Amino acid sequence: MEKLWKKNFISIEPYTAGEQPKSDDIIKLNANENPYPPAPGVLDAIAGTRGDSMRMYPSMDAMPLKQEMAAHLPSLYGVELRPENIFIGNGSDDVLATAFRAFFNSDKPILFPDVTYSFYPVWCELLKIPFETPAVDADFGINVKDYAKPNGGVVIPNPNAPTSIGRGLDFIRELLELNRDCIVIIDEAYIDFGGESALPLLSEYENLLITQTYSKSRSMAGMRIGMAYGSEELIQMMYAVKDSYNSYPLDNVAIAAGIASLQDEEYFRDSLAKVIATRDRTAAALRELGFTVADSSTNFLFAEHDKLTAQEIFAHLRERGIYVRYWNKPKIGNRLRITIGTDEQMDKMLEAIKEMV
Amino acid sequence: MEKLWKKNFISIEPYTAGEQPKSDDIIKLNANENPYPPAPGVLDAIAGTRGDSMRMYPSMDAMPLKQEMAAHLPSLYGVELRPENIFIGNGSDDVLATAFRAFFNSDKPILFPDVTYSFYPVWCELLKIPFETPAVDADFGINVKDYAKPNGGVVIPNPNAPTSIGRGLDFIRELLELNRDCIVIIDEAYIDFGGESALPLLSEYENLLITQTYSKSRSMAGMRIGMAYGSEELIQMMYAVKDSYNSYPLDNVAIAAGIASLQDEEYFRDSLAKVIATRDRTAAALRELGFTVADSSTNFLFAEHDKLTAQEIFAHLRERGIYVRYWNKPKIGNRLRITIGTDEQMDKMLEAIKEMV
Repeated sequence: MEKLWKKNFISIEPYTAGEQPKSDDIIKLNANENPYPPAPGVLDAIAGTRGDSMRMYPSMDAMPLKQEMAAHLPSLYGVELRPENIFIGNGSDDVLATAFRAFFNSDKPILFPDVTYSFYPVWCELLKIPFETPAVDADFGINVKDYAKPNGGVVIPNPNAPTSIGRGLDFIRELLELNRDCIVIIDEAYIDFGGESALPLLSEYENLLITQTYSKSRSMAGMRIGMAYGSEELIQMMYAVKDSYNSYPLDNVAIAAGIASLQDEEYFRDSLAKVIATRDRTAAALRELGFTVADSSTNFLFAEHDKLTAQEIFAHLRERGIYVRYWNKPKIGNRLRITIGTDEQMDKMLEAIKEMV
Repeated sequence: MEKLWKKNFISIEPYTAGEQPKSDDIIKLNANENPYPPAPGVLDAIAGTRGDSMRMYPSMDAMPLKQEMAAHLPSLYGVELRPENIFIGNGSDDVLATAFRAFFNSDKPILFPDVTYSFYPVWCELLKIPFETPAVDADFGINVKDYAKPNGGVVIPNPNAPTSIGRGLDFIRELLELNRDCIVIIDEAYIDFGGESALPLLSEYENLLITQTYSKSRSMAGMRIGMAYGSEELIQMMYAVKDSYNSYPLDNVAIAAGIASLQDEEYFRDSLAKVIATRDRTAAALRELGFTVADSSTNFLFAEHDKLTAQEIFAHLRERGIYVRYWNKPKIGNRLRITIGTDEQMDKMLEAIKEMV
């Protein structure tokens, strides 16, 4: 029997999920998760959940979390914003998808680098947004002049992923000067690991939107909290979109946990410093073993060996229960993306690589 | 200065949020929240959250929760389904919006009643889905023959909201027989308060999708868990859409809390029985006071007084800190929607109404 009820299905490519190893013995360096737990106050806040937080709907815009965020932005990033400048969603993917839908409705293509976060083209397909991907150079650098052409919007991750390379505010400012008449999104998912946030530029550019996440620096990938900062007009438009499909993206426990994370700035800075120290030590060790390693402003390394292929290192590590990321793709096919774990995990990975070289 | 960067904004009506009173003194009967907390095991599961549940990403499809759901469907609804027949999202609004996008891509209008959940037309606007809204009759009944015309899909809430009226499986079966060549969504947000679930029909109709939520019967509106049940083909298509915009809609705490809720069926049945008993007692009391009250299969009542207007009762209750729902809209403009609270809350509401009649 012909299934006529399938005739109005959306035309879309099903996604093939990456490998998610389950064993406790493995060393998981393939998802850019933070090796350290969140601040102790986060688990305390979660443990304090009461029945009313369950049975009643959350704040539609997670207002208590936005208020706490506004209070901490001066000490975290040296900027003053109001809750009206903040949008909060169910992870930064939800936030970015909302922004794409709100702001990218031009016939002209939006622009983002050819080597970057793999979800950008997926959202463009889903939302029928035309796009072009200017090529990064041989060192994976983004050339700002490539973003001077007519466009329907610009998205630049800073630092970029999977390259790990961060750019300073001069670059971002030049990008913004070239694009005053469209929305420019700077995706700062990894900014806290040593990058320079564009938040101070918000007061100058009303068309700038900055996204961040709790998943990396705040060790809360399991909690799904992402945010965007921008002018009140941009944030209002994002809420108009959000309110048209999902009134309550953040649950009450996530709101409480997010607040508690912000309240312990010392723990936050200490755990960032640990990841950064481990990263820089690991990068130096890899270079000694014959790797080219990009200068990382993130919690991962983007590395290529001068003799061994990425594929054989990937396979060798995997046999030893160490999972890193490798793509069978043009331009990055001989690169590994290695998440920074604990010092002990990095030592085990380095030992395993030494067996090969 | 002209803000040219606004030129590519989405064209959309900003949403005006309903009143969310903040005081602890008020009696909140306006959001169909459950007056009772979730099963004690839910708070225990939340309190047991560990650091790894925070720092690591959740299961992309909330698989542990789907497995638990599949295990409980026989005792809850008398049906056997596999995890492959279940989709889980960030509240049933997220689930329904995903289904609309996956299945309603026809030039023909989708059909849903003119008096129903107010989000259906909003999703149609957002996703550019044409729609028609057959009129309910004078008693707010849905006429199945209105759904016999060519269409791009059908959505029927059973029980319907805000009318509170539930229909039996004969009605659903007739609807499905009239619509074998499109997707039929039965929105069962309120089914557990005495309705007859269409879940047993899934084995006969591959084009049937049923949505449910944790927000009402499971007292977990604050946790954002919604689900859909359907044939493997429908569920796969929904995941293709979900994976194109948000990989991880459910956080790890929500997954654990959702599992714990399922594990205490006795508590679930007891708290449903309490709400149902209070509802039926309250409906009888309202009828004695001169109200016409629809027979409710939900956790709310849809009531109209024979002399007083809905607006004046609404205002009178509000002055006394009792919030019910009232719409200044055609057809339902003289109706109140009253959420079932505790017996004590209902008594206070009835007392306040007695002052008027």
